[in-house]
Amino acid sequence: MKHRLDELAAYLKETGIDAAFINSPENFFYLTGFLTDPHERLLGLVVFPEADPMAVLPGMEKAQLQETGWSHEIIGYADHENPWQMIKDSMNQAGITNVHHVGIEKEVLSYGRSESFFALFDDAEVLDIEGKLNEMRVVKDEQEIAVLKEAAELADFGVKVGTEALNEGVTEMEVLAAIEYELKKKGVAQMSFSTMVLFGEKSGHPHGNPGDRRLKEGDLVLFDLGVVWKGYTSDITRTFAFRSVNEKQKAIYETVLEALNASLTISRPGTRIGDLDEAARQVITEAGYGDKFPHRIGHGLGINVHEFPSMSHLNDGVLKEGMTYTLEPGIYDPEIGGVRIEDDVLVTSEGYVTLTETPKELTIIK
Amino acid sequence: MKHRLDELAAYLKETGIDAAFINSPENFFYLTGFLTDPHERLLGLVVFPEADPMAVLPGMEKAQLQETGWSHEIIGYADHENPWQMIKDSMNQAGITNVHHVGIEKEVLSYGRSESFFALFDDAEVLDIEGKLNEMRVVKDEQEIAVLKEAAELADFGVKVGTEALNEGVTEMEVLAAIEYELKKKGVAQMSFSTMVLFGEKSGHPHGNPGDRRLKEGDLVLFDLGVVWKGYTSDITRTFAFRSVNEKQKAIYETVLEALNASLTISRPGTRIGDLDEAARQVITEAGYGDKFPHRIGHGLGINVHEFPSMSHLNDGVLKEGMTYTLEPGIYDPEIGGVRIEDDVLVTSEGYVTLTETPKELTIIK
Repeated sequence: MKHRLDELAAYLKETGIDAAFINSPENFFYLTGFLTDPHERLLGLVVFPEADPMAVLPGMEKAQLQETGWSHEIIGYADHENPWQMIKDSMNQAGITNVHHVGIEKEVLSYGRSESFFALFDDAEVLDIEGKLNEMRVVKDEQEIAVLKEAAELADFGVKVGTEALNEGVTEMEVLAAIEYELKKKGVAQMSFSTMVLFGEKSGHPHGNPGDRRLKEGDLVLFDLGVVWKGYTSDITRTFAFRSVNEKQKAIYETVLEALNASLTISRPGTRIGDLDEAARQVITEAGYGDKFPHRIGHGLGINVHEFPSMSHLNDGVLKEGMTYTLEPGIYDPEIGGVRIEDDVLVTSEGYVTLTETPKELTIIK
Repeated sequence: MKHRLDELAAYLKETGIDAAFINSPENFFYLTGFLTDPHERLLGLVVFPEADPMAVLPGMEKAQLQETGWSHEIIGYADHENPWQMIKDSMNQAGITNVHHVGIEKEVLSYGRSESFFALFDDAEVLDIEGKLNEMRVVKDEQEIAVLKEAAELADFGVKVGTEALNEGVTEMEVLAAIEYELKKKGVAQMSFSTMVLFGEKSGHPHGNPGDRRLKEGDLVLFDLGVVWKGYTSDITRTFAFRSVNEKQKAIYETVLEALNASLTISRPGTRIGDLDEAARQVITEAGYGDKFPHRIGHGLGINVHEFPSMSHLNDGVLKEGMTYTLEPGIYDPEIGGVRIEDDVLVTSEGYVTLTETPKELTIIK
């Protein structure tokens, strides 16, 4: 993790930030290797352009941070102590007193905590460091890719369990329970978001909630699920037909698959990100379903299941080798049912590979 | 929900706040009855002392908010629109232009969103409204209590499933999977936090993670779990002995149970909240385990599983009828194992009732 902290310190130096506070557990994990959920307690890193960084966290987690190899100062506080004062004291001891520009994660740091941090200094100017951290996190290294691949394999496995649980009369929640049960037995402590299992007309809404709808012949079945695995996430969607499929369902399925392939085909270093959305949207619009694809094509994928970048048609950024993201076109019609097909994609030097591997041809579950 | 909005508007008037922005999905639910997870998209309410409130949310959720009975303005935005500008326009249309004091939820609103909100006004002074919302939410009405009771019953059921899954050689994750599987089949879409199932020495750490530790005779087994149900939460802990129990384990169990009873006994309107912690801590300290109870006695329970108030010995607030919270003393020793017993408690006019009902006498699972 040392090179990540070094890169961040160099950025602070370059931009004239004298002290930065990192509060998101995800960025904390990215920079220290220690993954923890502090609930409402304070967890953070104070990073400087020249001096050693300091970690601040509940005292009872101090040993665990040390075990990950963190060799810098750790401010471990008890519930009755004021961690902000302890940060101030540590900075004074380290001789860090001239702070005129401070950096924070603007989109995640709460206003209240920003007040506490700013109060350590006289009238410092506030700058954002979240953009830099997003930019660092967007390109994954080999070790991250290996873990993302494992997370995607577990998502594939979840879809497999789901298809095997499909029987006439089973409810969405029963199938969902079967999927998560088998994943937990494989050691998955947490799904990366609320699992979706939607049948028939329920699949025809982009934001349906699984419930007691029972499966019947002719339903489309939409699975959208992912896991958190060693701190990284996956996110897959597959849609199946149960026992039979009609022409309208087949038509939207083939259109969505063609749209996904249109985005996949242009996934390579240098492609404008917004073009991924436009390529899929063009296929869907030309097939006459333009108003039934109401969301962006995808999002960055890593420590967060939704992370930078947001892959809408407006995004003028370009793909780089090592980026991982989802592509997930969909068409939703409550009369026919909905189809979404989603892969987790890794940009390689020449093009892409999908981390998710569940087949995508229209499959009728018998 | 109207009386809640009225109470908040009256508070704004009283404190001179001209416009308040509510951003937490929990407070949004509390004030509108509409529960949704907006992920990274903006969801909020703008509330005024005199004028009608405005809701702002992704356009595709507008219909769902209307279905809950929301009769005021809804600013539904598309992904390419700027919701802040739309708020500004709506305020101008409503003739709300003199804003000198703004209210926000300081602990939950991000610094970035606070900047966007403040930018709608010239140099407004910032005040906190989270304290008021916490104070409103702390006393539950009949309908809330009925739902909390259902959530607690589901937590009791989860513990029952867990004990039934205990067999020589089973892993923590397998038992956890069985619990969540049965809860999902009952329609529980979400646990209120990561379920804990800890065996033997693993139970001897207050923050253990379930894994592949296998159950064996003589282990203590600690379950800590809860559900989200109709927007409200539960949180129960029970500890069992598997097949046999030794004297040291029995001693800490009886001490923890006595500590819990000491806090329960004084749970009634007017009791100082810090005294709940002190009553339990005194029992544990006198039994010689004072250094093995490293956390507060409990926390408020409602829409959030950890909500106001934080029940440490420092809390000088007093209990009121209708408050709901957890009491969860524990003693942790990696050599012996850990014991924690936790109830969800409702303060009644004369005293208390526990919402959780799983028996607490030391039970040896055969």
